[in-house]
Amino acid sequence: MTSSPLKNDLLLRALLRQPTERTPVWLMRQAGRYLPEYRETRARAGSFIALMSTPEFACEVTLQPVNRFPLDAAILFSDILTIPAAMGLGLHFIEGEGPAFERPVRDVAAVVKLGVPDPEQDLRYVLDTVRLVRQELAGRVPLIGFAGSPWTLATYMVEGGASKEFALIKGMLYAEPATLHKLLDVLARSISVYLNAQIAAGAQAVMLFDTWGGVLTGEAYKEFSLRYMQAVIAELRRESEGRHVPVILFTKGGGAWLEAMSHSGADALGVDWTQDLGDARRRVGAKVALQGNLDPAALYAPPERIREDVGKVLESFGHGQGHVFNLGHGIQTGVKPEHVAAMVAAVHELSPSYHK
Amino acid sequence: MTSSPLKNDLLLRALLRQPTERTPVWLMRQAGRYLPEYRETRARAGSFIALMSTPEFACEVTLQPVNRFPLDAAILFSDILTIPAAMGLGLHFIEGEGPAFERPVRDVAAVVKLGVPDPEQDLRYVLDTVRLVRQELAGRVPLIGFAGSPWTLATYMVEGGASKEFALIKGMLYAEPATLHKLLDVLARSISVYLNAQIAAGAQAVMLFDTWGGVLTGEAYKEFSLRYMQAVIAELRRESEGRHVPVILFTKGGGAWLEAMSHSGADALGVDWTQDLGDARRRVGAKVALQGNLDPAALYAPPERIREDVGKVLESFGHGQGHVFNLGHGIQTGVKPEHVAAMVAAVHELSPSYHK
Repeated sequence: MTSSPLKNDLLLRALLRQPTERTPVWLMRQAGRYLPEYRETRARAGSFIALMSTPEFACEVTLQPVNRFPLDAAILFSDILTIPAAMGLGLHFIEGEGPAFERPVRDVAAVVKLGVPDPEQDLRYVLDTVRLVRQELAGRVPLIGFAGSPWTLATYMVEGGASKEFALIKGMLYAEPATLHKLLDVLARSISVYLNAQIAAGAQAVMLFDTWGGVLTGEAYKEFSLRYMQAVIAELRRESEGRHVPVILFTKGGGAWLEAMSHSGADALGVDWTQDLGDARRRVGAKVALQGNLDPAALYAPPERIREDVGKVLESFGHGQGHVFNLGHGIQTGVKPEHVAAMVAAVHELSPSYHK
Repeated sequence: MTSSPLKNDLLLRALLRQPTERTPVWLMRQAGRYLPEYRETRARAGSFIALMSTPEFACEVTLQPVNRFPLDAAILFSDILTIPAAMGLGLHFIEGEGPAFERPVRDVAAVVKLGVPDPEQDLRYVLDTVRLVRQELAGRVPLIGFAGSPWTLATYMVEGGASKEFALIKGMLYAEPATLHKLLDVLARSISVYLNAQIAAGAQAVMLFDTWGGVLTGEAYKEFSLRYMQAVIAELRRESEGRHVPVILFTKGGGAWLEAMSHSGADALGVDWTQDLGDARRRVGAKVALQGNLDPAALYAPPERIREDVGKVLESFGHGQGHVFNLGHGIQTGVKPEHVAAMVAAVHELSPSYHK
C-alpha cells in the first residue's frame, strides 16, 4: 500500500471533533451522473456493473469530483450491494428501475446457505480500487470506504430489489423474526470483515449507509438495524497507518433516534435534511461529530441562494468542532456542476468564522 | 341530506379529547385491495377511475370494512387527486405504477390557468358518494371526508405523477418559489371549498393527507406545506348538524414538526409508525388529539403478536382522552382480513382500561 503523507486531514480531524481551520466538505454520491466526465467514463465502461467492478474505471470516477472541486475527501466509487452480490444472489441492474437479485432470500433455508465472503477473494475488485485510488490520490485528501448496513442489505436481499412498502422484509420481521436475525447476523459479520479489508487496503475513514432504517418503528430500528450496526462497529480495526480510522453512521429518516445512534461506537453521525442540525447537536452533545445536512434539492437554486442555504446549515450547527459539511442525502442527477462548485466555495468562504 | 342520529360517536368525541369508554379505531385505506369484496367490486367497476367516480361503487367499497369489522368510522372512498383531475390535468392510472397527469404544471403560465373547481359541478360524484354513504350508514358510525394537502397535490401536479426524488417540484421550490406559492395558494382555496362541500354533503370529520410533507426541510415544511394547510383549516366550516366537525392533519414523516402542527388549528394529528406515541403526546400536550400509530406491517404478524403490538401502542399513549387508534399509514395489500379483525378486537378488548 502507498502511504504518502496526508496533506489535507481536515475530514479526519473534524470526524474526531478536533480543531480545524474551517469545516471540511464532501458530498454523498459525489462521483455520479451529474458530472459529464462520469457519464463519459460510464459510457466507455459499457454498464454500471463494469464501471464499478473494474478498478481502473472505478478509480477514475472516484477521483473526478476531487479533481473538479476543492473537496476534503474522496469516497470509494462502488455499490452498497457488493456483499449480497458476492454471496451469489445474482445482482443485476434494470435500466431506470435499479438493482434486482435473481435469487432473493426469503426463508431460513436460503439464509443458512449464506456464507461470509472473503474480501480478498470475492471482493478483490473493490480492494484493488481502494489501493489504486490511494496511489493516485498520493495523500491529497483521505479516502472514505463504505458499506450498506445489515438491515439495508437485508431489505434488498429479501425484497429482491428496491421496494416502496417493504412488505416482504417487514413480513419476515413481524412473522419470522428469528430468520431475519440469522440473516442480519451473517450480514453484520460479512460487513465488518469487508470494511476491515477496505481499511487494510487503505480506506482512512469508513461510513455505514443505513438507507432504509427509517422505515422501521423505533423499537424495531434498535433491534433490527442499530444493534447490527453496533456489532459491525465493534469488530472494526480502528487504527491504520498510525491514525484513528473514524466511523460514520448514517440512517436516512433516522432523526428521531440520534441519541441511540450516538451510543453505537460511531465517531460521527450523518444527519438528513429533514432535521435541524442545531437540534441534532444539542441532542447528541459532545459524544459524536455530525455530518450534513443541506437538502440535496437546494442545489437546484441559483448560486446566490445556495450560498445563503450553506450559511444557514453552518449557522445551525454553530461555532466549534465536530461538523463535516455534506448534503443530507446523495446528490441528484439533474444538478449542475457549477452549483456544486458554488456550494463548496461557500463552505470554504463562510466556515472559517465558526472555527475561531 | 339524511340525518339519522349518530349511534356511535366515539371517534368524534376522541378527536375533541372528550371522555370515551374505549379508544375508537379505524384504518387508513381501510377500503382496499386486501379485502376480497373490494377486489370483486373493483372488477365489476372495470377500472379504478370508474370505481371511485361512480357513487354506487364508491359507496359500496366505503361500507365494506365497516360491515366486516366493528370499526368506529367510515372514510369516504376516493382519491387524493380528484382536485387536480377537476382542474383539467388529465388524470389516469398506469397499472402497477400509480397516477399520472397528461398535462403537468411546470411553470407560471400553467399555474395561472388553474381555477378553483366548483365541487357541486366538477366534483359532484364525490359529493353524491358522501350523500349516499350517509344514507346507507344511517347513523351507525360517522363518515370522514378527506383531501390531499396543497403541497402533496402540488408534488403530483408538478412531477406529473409519483416521484422518488421530487426533483421538479423541489427545483421549483428552490429556484422559483413565487410560482410554487401561486400554485399552493390556488390549491389551498380549492381544498377548503371542496372540504366544505363534503361537510355540507354530510362528512362529520375531515382529514388532510400530507403524504409528502416529510420530504422537506423543517423550514420548507412550514413555508410550503403547513402554512397552506393552516390556510385550508382557517376556511373550514367547523359546525354541521349541531356538532363540531373535527379536523385531522397527517404529515407522513412529519414527526419532527408535531409541535408546529399542533398550532395549525387542527383538532387532531395523525402520527406515523416511526414516532413514539407517548413522546408525541408529551410534545403536543393537551392541544390536540393524536391518531395512530401501529406499523402497517405489524399486521403481517400472527394474531397473538398483533394483540401484543396493539397493547404497546395503547400503553405508549397511556391513560386518558384524545387517542384514536389507527395504523401509522395506509393498510398494505398483502394483509389478511383476519389479521385486521384481530387488531380491531384487541383495541376493543384492551383499550377500556385506559379510560377509567
